[in-house]
Parts: sequence; structure tokens; C-alpha cells
Amino acid sequence: MSEQLRWLLKKVAEGQLDPGEAYDELKRFEDLGFVKIDQHRKERKGFPEVIYGESKTAVQITRIFESMMNVYEVVLATRVSPEKAEEILCRLPRLKYCKESKTLLHARKPLEPQYQGTVGILCAGTSDLPVAKEAVVTAQAMGNPVKEFYDIGVAGIHRLFHHLDDIKTCRVLICIAGMEAALPSVVGGLCHQPIIAVPTSVGYGSHFGGVTALLSMLNSCSSGITVVNIDNGFGAAYAATLINRLGEGVSV
Amino acid sequence: MSEQLRWLLKKVAEGQLDPGEAYDELKRFEDLGFVKIDQHRKERKGFPEVIYGESKTAVQITRIFESMMNVYEVVLATRVSPEKAEEILCRLPRLKYCKESKTLLHARKPLEPQYQGTVGILCAGTSDLPVAKEAVVTAQAMGNPVKEFYDIGVAGIHRLFHHLDDIKTCRVLICIAGMEAALPSVVGGLCHQPIIAVPTSVGYGSHFGGVTALLSMLNSCSSGITVVNIDNGFGAAYAATLINRLGEGVSV
Amino acid sequence: MSEQLRWLLKKVAEGQLDPGEAYDELKRFEDLGFVKIDQHRKERKGFPEVIYGESKTAVQITRIFESMMNVYEVVLATRVSPEKAEEILCRLPRLKYCKESKTLLHARKPLEPQYQGTVGILCAGTSDLPVAKEAVVTAQAMGNPVKEFYDIGVAGIHRLFHHLDDIKTCRVLICIAGMEAALPSVVGGLCHQPIIAVPTSVGYGSHFGGVTALLSMLNSCSSGITVVNIDNGFGAAYAATLINRLGEGVSV
Amino acid sequence: MSEQLRWLLKKVAEGQLDPGEAYDELKRFEDLGFVKIDQHRKERKGFPEVIYGESKTAVQITRIFESMMNVYEVVLATRVSPEKAEEILCRLPRLKYCKESKTLLHARKPLEPQYQGTVGILCAGTSDLPVAKEAVVTAQAMGNPVKEFYDIGVAGIHRLFHHLDDIKTCRVLICIAGMEAALPSVVGGLCHQPIIAVPTSVGYGSHFGGVTALLSMLNSCSSGITVVNIDNGFGAAYAATLINRLGEGVSV
Amino acid sequence: MSEQLRWLLKKVAEGQLDPGEAYDELKRFEDLGFVKIDQHRKERKGFPEVIYGESKTAVQITRIFESMMNVYEVVLATRVSPEKAEEILCRLPRLKYCKESKTLLHARKPLEPQYQGTVGILCAGTSDLPVAKEAVVTAQAMGNPVKEFYDIGVAGIHRLFHHLDDIKTCRVLICIAGMEAALPSVVGGLCHQPIIAVPTSVGYGSHFGGVTALLSMLNSCSSGITVVNIDNGFGAAYAATLINRLGEGVSV
Amino acid sequence: MSEQLRWLLKKVAEGQLDPGEAYDELKRFEDLGFVKIDQHRKERKGFPEVIYGESKTAVQITRIFESMMNVYEVVLATRVSPEKAEEILCRLPRLKYCKESKTLLHARKPLEPQYQGTVGILCAGTSDLPVAKEAVVTAQAMGNPVKEFYDIGVAGIHRLFHHLDDIKTCRVLICIAGMEAALPSVVGGLCHQPIIAVPTSVGYGSHFGGVTALLSMLNSCSSGITVVNIDNGFGAAYAATLINRLGEGVSV
Amino acid sequence: MSEQLRWLLKKVAEGQLDPGEAYDELKRFEDLGFVKIDQHRKERKGFPEVIYGESKTAVQITRIFESMMNVYEVVLATRVSPEKAEEILCRLPRLKYCKESKTLLHARKPLEPQYQGTVGILCAGTSDLPVAKEAVVTAQAMGNPVKEFYDIGVAGIHRLFHHLDDIKTCRVLICIAGMEAALPSVVGGLCHQPIIAVPTSVGYGSHFGGVTALLSMLNSCSSGITVVNIDNGFGAAYAATLINRLGEGVSV
Amino acid sequence: MSEQLRWLLKKVAEGQLDPGEAYDELKRFEDLGFVKIDQHRKERKGFPEVIYGESKTAVQITRIFESMMNVYEVVLATRVSPEKAEEILCRLPRLKYCKESKTLLHARKPLEPQYQGTVGILCAGTSDLPVAKEAVVTAQAMGNPVKEFYDIGVAGIHRLFHHLDDIKTCRVLICIAGMEAALPSVVGGLCHQPIIAVPTSVGYGSHFGGVTALLSMLNSCSSGITVVNIDNGFGAAYAATLINRLGEGVSV
Repeated sequence: MSEQLRWLLKKVAEGQLDPGEAYDELKRFEDLGFVKIDQHRKERKGFPEVIYGESKTAVQITRIFESMMNVYEVVLATRVSPEKAEEILCRLPRLKYCKESKTLLHARKPLEPQYQGTVGILCAGTSDLPVAKEAVVTAQAMGNPVKEFYDIGVAGIHRLFHHLDDIKTCRVLICIAGMEAALPSVVGGLCHQPIIAVPTSVGYGSHFGGVTALLSMLNSCSSGITVVNIDNGFGAAYAATLINRLGEGVSV
Repeated sequence: MSEQLRWLLKKVAEGQLDPGEAYDELKRFEDLGFVKIDQHRKERKGFPEVIYGESKTAVQITRIFESMMNVYEVVLATRVSPEKAEEILCRLPRLKYCKESKTLLHARKPLEPQYQGTVGILCAGTSDLPVAKEAVVTAQAMGNPVKEFYDIGVAGIHRLFHHLDDIKTCRVLICIAGMEAALPSVVGGLCHQPIIAVPTSVGYGSHFGGVTALLSMLNSCSSGITVVNIDNGFGAAYAATLINRLGEGVSV
Repeated sequence: MSEQLRWLLKKVAEGQLDPGEAYDELKRFEDLGFVKIDQHRKERKGFPEVIYGESKTAVQITRIFESMMNVYEVVLATRVSPEKAEEILCRLPRLKYCKESKTLLHARKPLEPQYQGTVGILCAGTSDLPVAKEAVVTAQAMGNPVKEFYDIGVAGIHRLFHHLDDIKTCRVLICIAGMEAALPSVVGGLCHQPIIAVPTSVGYGSHFGGVTALLSMLNSCSSGITVVNIDNGFGAAYAATLINRLGEGVSV
Repeated sequence: MSEQLRWLLKKVAEGQLDPGEAYDELKRFEDLGFVKIDQHRKERKGFPEVIYGESKTAVQITRIFESMMNVYEVVLATRVSPEKAEEILCRLPRLKYCKESKTLLHARKPLEPQYQGTVGILCAGTSDLPVAKEAVVTAQAMGNPVKEFYDIGVAGIHRLFHHLDDIKTCRVLICIAGMEAALPSVVGGLCHQPIIAVPTSVGYGSHFGGVTALLSMLNSCSSGITVVNIDNGFGAAYAATLINRLGEGVSV
Repeated sequence: MSEQLRWLLKKVAEGQLDPGEAYDELKRFEDLGFVKIDQHRKERKGFPEVIYGESKTAVQITRIFESMMNVYEVVLATRVSPEKAEEILCRLPRLKYCKESKTLLHARKPLEPQYQGTVGILCAGTSDLPVAKEAVVTAQAMGNPVKEFYDIGVAGIHRLFHHLDDIKTCRVLICIAGMEAALPSVVGGLCHQPIIAVPTSVGYGSHFGGVTALLSMLNSCSSGITVVNIDNGFGAAYAATLINRLGEGVSV
Repeated sequence: MSEQLRWLLKKVAEGQLDPGEAYDELKRFEDLGFVKIDQHRKERKGFPEVIYGESKTAVQITRIFESMMNVYEVVLATRVSPEKAEEILCRLPRLKYCKESKTLLHARKPLEPQYQGTVGILCAGTSDLPVAKEAVVTAQAMGNPVKEFYDIGVAGIHRLFHHLDDIKTCRVLICIAGMEAALPSVVGGLCHQPIIAVPTSVGYGSHFGGVTALLSMLNSCSSGITVVNIDNGFGAAYAATLINRLGEGVSV
Repeated sequence: MSEQLRWLLKKVAEGQLDPGEAYDELKRFEDLGFVKIDQHRKERKGFPEVIYGESKTAVQITRIFESMMNVYEVVLATRVSPEKAEEILCRLPRLKYCKESKTLLHARKPLEPQYQGTVGILCAGTSDLPVAKEAVVTAQAMGNPVKEFYDIGVAGIHRLFHHLDDIKTCRVLICIAGMEAALPSVVGGLCHQPIIAVPTSVGYGSHFGGVTALLSMLNSCSSGITVVNIDNGFGAAYAATLINRLGEGVSV
Repeated sequence: MSEQLRWLLKKVAEGQLDPGEAYDELKRFEDLGFVKIDQHRKERKGFPEVIYGESKTAVQITRIFESMMNVYEVVLATRVSPEKAEEILCRLPRLKYCKESKTLLHARKPLEPQYQGTVGILCAGTSDLPVAKEAVVTAQAMGNPVKEFYDIGVAGIHRLFHHLDDIKTCRVLICIAGMEAALPSVVGGLCHQPIIAVPTSVGYGSHFGGVTALLSMLNSCSSGITVVNIDNGFGAAYAATLINRLGEGVSV
């Protein structure tokens, strides 16, 4: 922003830009009343805003899609319930809804990987699949090739070893686990990649909606593991993308 | 107790026992005023009461030792601080104090294993040693052969595999770990023995005095794991003994 | 695993086994896509994997049953809701569903005890029954004779004393209690067996979904008590089986 | 208060009392600047204010004693550390300090029971003694005969049965316990008196400064148990006194 | 119990009682399979067991009523949902269901107060009414005259003062409040009776299901207040009865 | 109150007022049985009681409206569900229900601002709107001009800067945010007004029903921020009104 | 800030200001390396930054004082331990240290009230004094007349009524309380001023370092109360000042 | 590991390697008794094990240093208290101790950056410095160029904007903050780099040892932020290194 500010100030100083315009330029977003769409974000972050569907109505999500589809080739919404999706698809029938990940995607043309490096998505148990799928869809929408490794939890550790060669070819790893969440610690002891751990709200009794897994991951004895919030497959994939593109020599 | 009750009632009915005596018989313990020593416990549980030193004064611990040493060959106190130990040893110089485990032991003759089966004590990191040593001393005092496996946490899982053959020869396992406490899950996935997991209060930041490890162990994805309280090496060894002697055909 | 590794290496060294085959041998499980069935587990643990039904769909559970029924005489699923059970039974009508324990069982022939020692299952109140029944079904499916003692909580302690003789004949005890969970402490003070305590999520007001009972059991003043997660009747029975078979001289 | 108000209004209406005086009468307390001593409390509650020493300086406690000793025969301070006590005793050498209960007592003449009914004070373990002693001193200072029953926890339940006859002669019971705090549940199942339970901050690992015992007591399966705050021996004795004097036909 | 024990032992010694009978006498309860009805409780506690309906089925509650109605004049069940009540009333149409308090009552003849002393039931807000009504029904079923004081919370403290004279005529007070639960502190500062405080799970935002009120009451600055669990109107009334009858000179 | 008391005492002393009447005067409220309407509150607080609808039935709310509409020009109820609102509107069709804020309003004539100063209501995201609208309706009902600034969270901080001039014209600010609740800290660093922060129960995973936002706001590094309870838009608007009218020179 | 931005842009456009200078102007603070003193804050907030001493060394605090004393007439530091204060006073002997409030004050000339309106500071008990004094010193340093009302907790509510007239003359109230923190609810029910509540970390047992008081205040049944963090007397006084000066017609 | 396994199996099959040797090769670490130094880790992770000093004695740390200094050019220990450091330096005087970060470093030759990309370390307040310094030392020891940005918290947001150009030149960012931890959200909204957030245990009142900051960061409204444990500067730097070297085209 300050680069832009400096540049704008220079333009103004040189008389090439009216101060009012400069001022306006700094404040670009579309105001739909209930929401201000941050059209500027792609420039700042390299990817447009993603629509968080959980606390928005179907009508709100529809209007945001309509606004963003004019500008961007790919638009993604997460946490869209099947009921809302059905309502939105009536009006925007070309969006693609994935029931497992609860994502709604607009893509002008078929998605193709933009990066060489692969994001590896590992999950410990069958119950972690919805979170894993949210990560998969997000990572693909953001241009990453993805490899998926499911049900490789430590209760049968040979299942993990079976895939170890393949896992090691990825550039970044997302480790998804509930219960005691031992997976990232074991993977972190065996692999050299950055690992983003995602705790899930799965388990018997005192897992407290994923808090056990969250605390477990934060306390991992393996180094190099960072953590996102419970069930936040989207956030993990977003961070993984920022890391993955570093390997491409991409700066923004 | 009810067997005893039935037996006492029968004796009374047959006139062989005075009702007052029967009544007294049911209430055997030595009353030192501040504490009632449960002299009856060895019969009920197969091992005399162990002295929990943390909230007792040196004088109180000394008096309890003196009372119990008259009756039992082996008497153990846990959680005795070095300061208290020094004071107690002045009066009872033949007790053995172990600084690492904070235990104080009376044994009329050198301890010898009473069971064939071995208790395996595994711990994840160097910091878990004091808890492990409390378990070792307790298990030995209760007559178990012990094998120790230290610093075999999952961040370098080959250290665990190195000892796996040896671990598999034990009859019961105690798994001690702090931080995210992944060790019992991995061991539980590879071994067939009963596993008692002990969370420790070790770690960076949000381990909350061992609560993270405790919750992690309670939520283990491996089956057959039971858990004792944080840092409770004594309790784990006690439970391990009850299990170990089952393998001897001992009933009490 | 390392024994197997050593053996495989030897076979390879002797030219009796192709290295590729050896490698494959180490990774035995059936991959159904969404789940990797750990066909190796019975060898490692002495009992095949149990299906945790809570976070799987009826279709997934059905497919896992079909895969495992080919291999094993007894297959058990826990936490199967009545709705899912109905759907599964359409396709696999010979499974037996128990509504109280929410378990689904496949047994090629009627279940018969495989061990001499009995697992005693005690519970404090009527509300603990579903958890108790999950423990009963699991223990029986794993080959244990079972004795049940219900509604013997400490508010009327004579109910417990009434059964004490009978309880003392068991080899392992499972103590199930909600609210303040005093039962295992009292039983632990009177009996010599290993006790596995199961907290339940039952009670007025601040029981916090069983956390009160869990903490209470972890802090029991009686020694030799280990704890599993809240409402985890399955886990308690699994651990009890591992302990019970020690008394048979069975090693795996 | 409203009786007094009604009475004052009547006096004023009858011209027997000046409105200003009436107003002042309603606001009786001595203002020492840092504290307003509630000289009115004995009339409202039947016992003068007790000095809570924990967060007051030795000088403040001394000044409050001096002010109250002019008015009352018995003045009690709780939670006075040995250091503060020493300082206070320099100036007020006739106060009696009890190190175990951390209480400081002024009594013009030797304390004598004012009630027929006895307050029974039960505690589960040796570590609960300081809390028990705070209750004992408070109860005696407030005029109750007291019977003490120590170290009768449920791990050796015959110790409790031994005293049961004696316990049943009391009019009110105070049950003090740490760890899993099973004592009041068992006593509540056997006795008919009102029971005030006091959780203590004693135990291994996850007792969380007494929260486990507190929750356990609040969730007791025995009816008729009420609870005071952790380690609050004073509060239990105060409430027990209010209950005990009901049995005397005393109304205030 | 021990009195009974001593008496039984004496009878046996004198040959007046067969030891087997003596033994059986100690274990009186009716075993319905899923529940053991504690027929002995009225003798021990002065009031028969109350049925806790929350975790029992309508069929179970019906059967327990049928068993107890043979023995007792008054039988009470709490936490009975309207659905269960309807089902039970089909079979036992003469029970009285109170929708507000969710209680189901059997009384052979109209309830009449058995005690002189009154139990005062105060509640802070309209939302606390269901808990208050549970206390009212329980207290009346147990023979207490009851006075009710509703919606007298401290936000308009003159509402409390209005009733103060009347409140002071009661022998025991139950104070029910949610939110910040200031009511018992204020009442405790003005009145001399024993006060049992009941926190309720009522409020905006961070009340955490009543934990705020619970903690507030435990930390009351007024002395003589004891606390029962959240929403536990029944428990408060039970304890109030134990206290109230002391004032009658009743011992059990 | 004490002014009134002094005045009443004087009147009584002068014989102008009967003591009984004086006494009654102090206790003005309408008693509907289940609720005591505090008709006195407007005098004490400058605004009549607001009806908290969450835990009241439609019938109760209706009766309170009927009682209050006789006395006040404006009556407001919050937390009224659509179902209850429908039922109430059948009987009181002229009330205005706002579905978004769940408020029900009676106003004899169109609401008009009574103050010069404006209350600025800022919220971080679309999901915070229901809370914001509760604040808006309350603030307007209490006579404040309101300016609304929505979806100006810190993830796109230029959206906030865009409105900064406008925000600075308000007299008091209400900052509503969920998730990590950074908005009030940033606003507090840029603006000079009193800020009332309202945490909302919005977010992914470990927000714990708004506790994260609540703690975040309490720990704000910017000075001058005070906080109300989670989702308590009403409380924030009420406090903002008390502050706003200070700027008018209004004292009550 | 945006006003300044607009103005700067205009200056630049008119050639009156160099863009580099404009840029620098936006970033005014003094950089001491370990800290950036926000010299701009007085313009933005109307009062200079206050030094939070808790986590700074004596040397750091000294250097910040030296830097700020050049610019401002009044400089305040909070949470300065006696040890640090002594060290700082060696170098800056004219600072005034208050041991009770742990504040360190620089004032070029004697402090005099700048506002007409008074800030009333109420606290419930003697133990709350250090927090109250931090509020007093801060409020006075920021130019407010202050009235103090100590030890007026609800356990003796007449102490509060005694001061009610005087309390009502204040423009803003700060209510400080620990334990169950009932004071602000009662005051809020009687007074019309904005109330800022400060929970303190005072009490027996389960107050959890002030969390009980914090939750209690957030859940107050009285409207118009806002809350600051535990023990945060400074923050309350800062907010009170922002509110108080509104009554003066001051805008910044 | 599996590559190595495959390779070893092949060697064995070709008769080039003895199976015993192959087996040993898989288990490389140095066993010091109390610790097993994972000499294999550098190959697996690209950096040798770092010594976590907090729960080790000075003697243990010394011995580990001695063992590792034989093998590696750079050896780092964290969380070494000044007392332990002094003791260690007696024996190993060439180690460098940094008091602020509590790190102890062995480097055969002066540390030089090995990577092009810079790790930016931002912290919100002065109190966060110890954590920041731990991150700085770790990052430098692992070969990263580092830029430091201190005291740029959001209460004076222009301090952050001042450094924005410079911050944007880094490849990875570490954001360290206590209190409400708003910094990473604001930075995440303005910058495109991967951000690792480190919560610190700093603040007034209810920050709960950093839990507030931790929860705040996990709930950040800005995307692309991952979190490590409280005060874990080391872990953040380790993860940052794994990410940074991706930008170099380094694979391990």
C-alpha cells in the first residue's frame, strides 16, 4: 500500500493526478450495502477474496458471486450448506457445488495447475474427509496440483510408510487429523517439507470439538509444523498456496 | 469385605466370637491422630498403603514410616522433596532416597522381582524422566522386573523401532509422554500388550500443565490404552502391577 | 514389525524373497479409497479392527463390513445410529443390531467365551446403561465371559456390598459412572483387580458432558485405577480384553 | 432492614425521632478510611463481621481488631499468614494465633459452646487438615460444640464405618475432601443430616486447584448436599452455625 | 448403618437371628433389573428416593412408580419431559404432572405441610421460574410450607425490599438466580437464615450455561451461603428440608 | 433513592405523609405475578425497562407490552423469535417487528432523535449484522441519531480508512466484531471517542461461541475501550445512550 | 488520519509540500530502538501514550520518560514495581511514585482538574484498593476531579446507600469489585450514569484470578454497564476520561 | 526412510550388504543413556536437532553439546536459563550465550546467511522482545538473513505503515504479538507473504498466559496465517526456514 501511496503522491506532485482521484484510488472496493467486496485484494494478496458462506444468506452469496464473476476467472465460496447451494444454483446454474467439501466454485474455464510444486494433503481417518476436501478444492482453485493421502493415521503406521516416497515428492504438506492428532508429529519427524496442521472436530468423548487435536498439534515435538484453526481446510490450503508459489520464484 | 462379614457373622452365631470383637475386627487401622494407617489394605489389595508425601510434613512421614516398618518388609513414600527427605533420613538413616523420582524406600532386604512378567516403561523425552523414575521405583518396590526405554519419542521414530523387539517381550507397558503425547498411539498401533499412558506436564506454551497430553492420550486412535493422571508415575506402576500379576496366575 | 522386518531381510538375503515383494509385504491393507482396512491388525493386536461408525456413512460401513466379513469370523461396529443401522441391515440382513449399545455385529457362528477369566462390568446408575452395554457387547465379541452389575452407585452403598462377593470373582473390572463418579474409588478401596474407569456424560448442571466424572476418576484416591475417555465403553472393553487374556497365559 | 425502616418511619411520624437522625441510624458502620466496619452486622446476622486477612496488611488487620474488640467479646480473623500474625501479635499480644488454620482470635473469656447441637467436621485425608482446622476454629468461635473425624476417605471405607455411630450424633456435618471428593456422596448416602461439602485444592496432576473436587461435589449423586467454595472452611462453618442454631429454637 | 450392624450382630449372638437373614437384612432394595430401588433410603434419610427422570425412559419411570407407590404415600419424579409424562399418564392417570417444573407426583391424599417452619423460595427473574417451580414442588412434596418471591432481582432492588419483612419470617431460604447471580449476596447481607443458592442457566452471551452464576455464588461476599448445582431446584429443596426439620426438633 | 428517602422522611416528619404511604411509595412496581414491572425505572435510569424476550413466552411478552404501553410512549423488546413475534402481533398488530434484529417495538409516534450527538455503529463483517441491527434499533428507540458502517474489518483495512472522516463525526462508537476482533483496537488507535466493543459469536473452529473475540477485546492494546457481553448489541446501545446524552448537558 | 492525508495530498498537489516530506509526516514517532514512542498519539487521542511498566526494564522506562518529558507536561507509567521505581528514581528523582497504585508520575506543575464533571470511583472491598488507586491516579493525571468510595460492597448494603447521594453527583462511575462482583449490578439499578466495571483478582478459592468477577460483570442484569479487563484500573480511568470530557463539550 | 529401505533391501538382495548391518543402519542415533541424539535428523530434515534446554540439567546440556559439536558446525540450544548457561560456559567457554533470547550457540565459524530470501520478524510491543530474539537467533543459526521490526502494534498503526515497504521485501514473515494479537491480521491484509504468527504470554488481566493471543491468531480474518505455540519463537523460525529455502530451489 505504501508503494502505491508513494507513487500516488508522486503523481499528484507532478500534477498528473488530481488529489481527489488519488484519494479515491486508495479506497477501491465495491459496496453492496451489506458487504464491501474487496476488489483490491487480488493485487495485494495475489488471489481474490474467497466467500465465507456460513453466516451469509443464499441471496447474499448469489449477489457477491454476480459481482465477482464480472471481474475474476475463478471465484470460490466455502461453507455453503446444501440448502443454500440449491437456492444459489437456481440463479447461477453453472457454478459447481461439491457436497463433501461444501464449496461452490465458479471457473470460466477448466481449472489447470499454475504451479510446478504439489500440495500434499494427508488425513488420518475417514472422518477427516470433509475438511480434507475443502482443502483440496481450495488448493486446486488457487492453481496448485494436489496429491491426496487418506486414512493413514498412526494406529496402523505401515499405511503411512507405504505412501512415504510419494509424500516426499510434494512441496508443501497439509496434515489433517482429529482425536489425538499424532499424524503431523510422525510425518514431521520423517519429512523435510513445511507442514500445515489442521485439527478436526472428530472423536469420542473429551475431544471438545477439536480442541484436543488443536492443542496436540501446537505442542508437537516435531519442528517446522504450523497450525490453523479447527476444521479450517480452506485456511490451510490458502497458506499452502502462499508457500508453494515461493518455490516457483513467484513474488506476487 | 463381605466374605469377612459373612464369616464373622457365622463365628458370632456359633458363639465362637464376641459381637464386640467382631465389630472391632471390621475396623482395623492404626490411628496416629492426624492419619489412620490402613493396616488392612495389604489384605484387600495385595500391597500395603503407599505414603503420598506431597502434603505431609517430614514429621508426619517419619511417624508413618515408623508405624508401617513394624509390619511390612517394604514401605514406599512418593513425592518427598529433598528437604523433607533430609529431615526424615536424620531419624531413619537406612531409608533410601532417590532424588530423581523423589521416592523414599524402606526394604528389609534387597528388592527382588516376585513376578516373571516384565513391566516396560517407555518415555518420549528426557524431560519425562522424573515421572518415569517414579514409575520404575514403584514397580520394583511392588515386585516387578522392569525394562526402561527412554527418549524414544515420535519425532525420530526409528529410535522406537530400534527397541521394538525388546518392548514386545514385556507383559505390560507404561507409556510416558508430554507435549502432544503421540507415543502411546504409535506404540498401541504396533504392540499387543495393555498400555497405561501417563501424561506429563512438559512442553512449550499451551500445554497447560499436561492437560494437552492428557486429552491427547484419552483420545488416542489406538485401542487398548488407558490413562492415569498427569505426572502420576506411581499410579501407572501400581495399575501395571495389578495387571502383571494376573499373568502369574496370582489372584491376590 | 521389526521381527518381521528382520525375517524379511533374512529371506531376501537368502534369495528366497524378491525385494519388491518384501517391500509390499510390509504394507498390507485393503484400500477402499475412502478407507484403508488394516488387515494386518489382527496379527499385531490379536483382534481385527473395529469399525467406528459415528463419522461414517451407512454406505461406507456396509462396504467395510463386506470387506472384513470375507476375512474374519467376528466383525463389530460401534456408534451406529438406528437410522444407519436400518439402511445397512437392508443389504446385510444377518448382522445383529443392538439399539441400546448402538452396535452392529457380524458373527459367523454364535459367540462363545474364549477365556476363563470374567470381565465384570459395574455401573453406578440407570443412565449409564448405554455405555455399559457398548462395553458388554464389545467384551463378548472379543471372547470374554461378562458379568453385569447395574445401578450400584454409592448413594445407597449397601447395593454395592450386596454384590461384592460376586464382583470379587471377576478378573478385570470396568467401572462406569457419571455425575461425581465415586464408584471406582469405593470399589478400588475394596477390590484387588485392575479397574478401568469409564466416565459418562450424565448428570444435572455442571457435569460438562462428563468432564466432572473424568476428572474425578483421574483423581481417585484409590490406587490401581486407569481411565478411558468419556462414554468410551468400547475402549474399556478392549483394554479389559488385553488384560484378561494375560491371565490365560495367552501372549498374542 | 425494612422492619427497622418501618419502625423508624413510625417514630418520625410520631415526632419521636428527627428525620436526620433516622437517616443516620440506617447507616451505622465505623469508617476507618480503608475499611467500613459493619457494626450493624451482628444485629442482622447474629454474629459480627469476620476479618478476611488474606488481602489486608498487618497494620490494617490490627486496626480492625482494635476497633472491633471494643464492641465484641469474640473477634476472628482468617487467612492470616504467620508473618502478618507475628507483626499483629507484637501490638495485640493477647490474640491467639493458630498456625495450622491461619486464624487469629480475640476472646474476652474462654470460648464455651452456646448450642446443644454439635457440628461434625469430617475430612478425607491428611492434606485436608488446614481447611478442616479453619472450619473448627470458626465453628467454635461462633459457639458450636465440634467433633472432628480425620482421614476417613473412601479408599479404606471401613475407617468411615468405624465412626459412623459417632457421626450420626451430630446435628450438621461438614465434609472436606480433595482429589475426587467422594466422601460427601458416601456420607450423604448413609446419614440424614444436612451436609456442607468443602472441596480442597489437594491432589496429583489434573485436580486444577480443587476444581475437580468442587465439580464432583456439585454433581454428587446423594441428595441434600450443598457446597461452598474451594478451601473455604470458614464459609462452611458459618453456614453450619446458621443451621445448627435453628435446632435450638433460636431465631436470631 | 453401623447401629443396625451392631444390633444385628447382637441378635445373631443371642441366637435370635439367623446369620443369613442378618446378612440379607443389610441389603434391602428391590431389583427391577435396570434399577435397584433403594427401599431402605427412607429409613436412612427420612424420605424415599426421588426418581430422576431425565435419563430414564417412560417405561422405566412407570415401573419405578408402580414399585414405589406400593410402599410410599408420596412419590416424586423430576425432569420428566411432557412427552414422557403423557406416556406415563396413560398408564398411571392419577399422577399429577406440572409442566412448568417438569415434575410428576403421586400422593395418596392431598399434600399437607408437616413442618412449622417455612421454606422461602426467591428468584431473580422470570426466566428462573422453571427451576423455582421444581424447588417448590419438591419442598411441598417433602412436607414443607412454602412461600414464593419471584422477579426480585437487584436491578430494581426496591422490589426485594418490598418483600423483606415477609422473607424474614421463613426458616430457610432458597435463592435462585442466573446471569451474574447477585441476589443471594444481597439477601445474605440482609437476612440471618441459612441460604441455599441455585445458579440457573439463563442469560446473554458468556454465561456458559450457568457457570457464571455458579462461580458468582461460590464467591459470594456474604457469609452463610451454600450452593447446589446449576438448575438443581430439586437438590436445593431437598437440602432445605433437611435443614427445616432441624427447627422442629425432628432428628430423622 | 436516598434523596427520595430523605424527602419522604421529611414529609412524614412534617405530618404531610402517612408512614404507610411513604413505605409504599418506595416500592413502586406493577406485579403481574410472574413478573414485577419496574415502573420506577424510567425515573431512576431515564429510560423504561426493556423486555428481554428470550426466556419469556409470547403470552408473557404480550402482557408486559400491554402493561407498559399504558405508561410509556416507546416500549422495546429484544430477542423475540419470529415465532413468538407472530403470536404477539396477532394480539398487538401495531407493534413493529424487525426480523434481522429480533426486536419488537411499540412507538406511539414515529421515532425522532432526541440528541444532537450521533452513535456510530461499526461492524467488521457481514455475519455481525444481526448484533449490529439490535444495537441500531435500541439506540434509535432510546433517541439517538445513528450512523452505520458495515463490513469494514481489518483484512482490508482501506475499507475502514474510507469511512474514517465520517466515523470521527460521531460522539460515541460501538465496534462489533467476531473472530479475532481486531477492529476496536485499530479504531481505538485512530479515534478519540469512547468505544464500546461487542464481541460476536461468529467464526471458524475455536472461537468458542465468541469467547475469543471477548478476550481479544478485553486485552486490546488501545486504551479507552470497554466491553459488553457476547452478542449484546442491546447493552452496547444502552451504554452508548448514557454516554451520548452526557454530551447534551442532560443529567437524567 | 484521512483528514490529514487529504490535507497533505492537497499541499503536495499545490506544490507546497514535497512528497517525501508528506510521506514522512505520516509516520511521526520517536524510535528508541526497543520502542517507538508514538508522539502522534496526543493529537489522535487527546492524551499522550501511557507507559505500561510491567514488561519493561527500569532502564527502558527511564529512557521513555526522558524522551516524553521533553514533549509533555504530564507523563504517567503504570505497573511499576517498587524495585524498578527505586532504580528509576535514582536517575529521575522528581518523578512521584505511589506504592499502592504502582504508578510513576511526571508532572511539570501540580495537577489540576481540567473538567467540571467528576469521576466517581467505587470499590467493594479493602482488597480492591490497589486497582482503585491505579484508577484514581490515572484519572487525576488525565485531568478529572475524582471522588472515592471504598468498601461499600453489597454484604452490608447500607454502606452503599449512605453514599448514594454523593455518588449521584458524579458524571461517570467506575465500579471495582472482586469475588462475585455484585456491586455494579446494584449501583446500575440505582444510578443513571455510565458505569465502567473493573473486575479484580480477589477472593477465596474458585475466583480464577478474577474470571468469576469478569463474567459476573459481563452478565450484569443492570443495563448500561461496560467492562474492562481484570485489575485494569488504568483502562477504566482512561475510558472514563473519554466519557467525562464529552460532558464538557470537548471534542478532542 | 522408505527410499533408504528400498535401497537397503536391494543391497541386501544383491549380497552387497549383510542383513544385520542393514538393520543397524536403519537405527542411527547416539545413545547417551538419558537421551538418544538423533544424528540422522539432519539428513531427514536438513538441519540437526536443536537442544530444548528447559527441562534438561546443565550437565545434560553440556554432554549433548559435546556429542553434537563433533559432528555439526552449528549447534543451538534454546530455553537455557542464565544459571544453567553459566555452568555450561565453565566447561564449554566458546559457546555464545544470549541473555535476551536465552539461547546458547556453538558455531565453528561466524554465521553467514545461506539463503537469498529474508525472514522478516515483526513484533507488536516491547514485551514481545524475548520471543522475537529467540526467533532471530534460531533463524540466523539456520542460515537465514533476518530483518527485525519492533514495536509496530496496531494501537499506532502508522508505525506499521512506516515499515511496510521494507516488510514487503521479505520472503516469509513471523508476526509476534501478545494481548489481543491484532498485528498478524492487519499485516495479513496488506502483505502477500506466508505469515507465521507467534502468540506471546503478555498482557493485563485475562490474557491467560497467551491463550487470548493464541485464539485470536487462530481466528484471524486474514487468510494465509498459520500459528505456532505460545512464546514459541524457535518453532516459528524453524518453520520459516523450511519455507524460505523453498524459494531457493533447495529440496533438502
